[in-house]
Amino acid sequence: MPSEAMMKAGLQAYVDLINAGDADGVTALFSADATIEDPAGSPIKRGPDIATWFKETIAFKTRIHPVAPIRGSHGREAALAFEVEFTPPGGSRMRIHSVDVCTFDDQGRITSLRAFWGPSDMEAVQNEA
Amino acid sequence: MPSEAMMKAGLQAYVDLINAGDADGVTALFSADATIEDPAGSPIKRGPDIATWFKETIAFKTRIHPVAPIRGSHGREAALAFEVEFTPPGGSRMRIHSVDVCTFDDQGRITSLRAFWGPSDMEAVQNEA
Repeated sequence: MPSEAMMKAGLQAYVDLINAGDADGVTALFSADATIEDPAGSPIKRGPDIATWFKETIAFKTRIHPVAPIRGSHGREAALAFEVEFTPPGGSRMRIHSVDVCTFDDQGRITSLRAFWGPSDMEAVQNEA
Repeated sequence: MPSEAMMKAGLQAYVDLINAGDADGVTALFSADATIEDPAGSPIKRGPDIATWFKETIAFKTRIHPVAPIRGSHGREAALAFEVEFTPPGGSRMRIHSVDVCTFDDQGRITSLRAFWGPSDMEAVQNEA
């Protein structure tokens, strides 16, 4: 079982590597068989689609701002509440209010990520931070 | 499919009814076959155990403070990031930093609740709000 400290460090690394623009680094946080469902209720990404997803994430100048301390659990899961800003191709800067819940393997790699946000949690950024 | 507005209203009612001390009201937010896993990684409660759980919750003078807007999803789920304070029998006041993720049926009733918090997310309350 991964420790809470290991899982929280994994989610903090996820934030830091995305904000640093390190697509390979963030992809390396995930296990080979990991799944991403972002947003929850959309098709699941896996395998090489995950590396592509993070290359796009970095290209969109994505910045994650946690809004509360990362939460652990009594199992293999941890949760991060955050706001994320990004600029889609040809579009203007957007903000999403999300909660990500991840599961971890014994080595602290992310085995699944589910992102809880819906259409009502997305807005245009009026004044960029 | 429940609307995002319906799911967010359900989670806001969960907060308001607990803070109002209305155990029957909060129990009525759940479907007959609902499950509660609080914290994630602990045994699942269902049926009459859910009403008992909320009677205890109210008896512990539980107060929930959301720390960010409630998140929806593109499916049947919504998420609430919060701090909760309560006083266990014979104990002193405690605070937990948690994220709850709930699923909803078409009528907006909660069909499952999973609470993400671990031992490292619990602390003694030094100065009660």
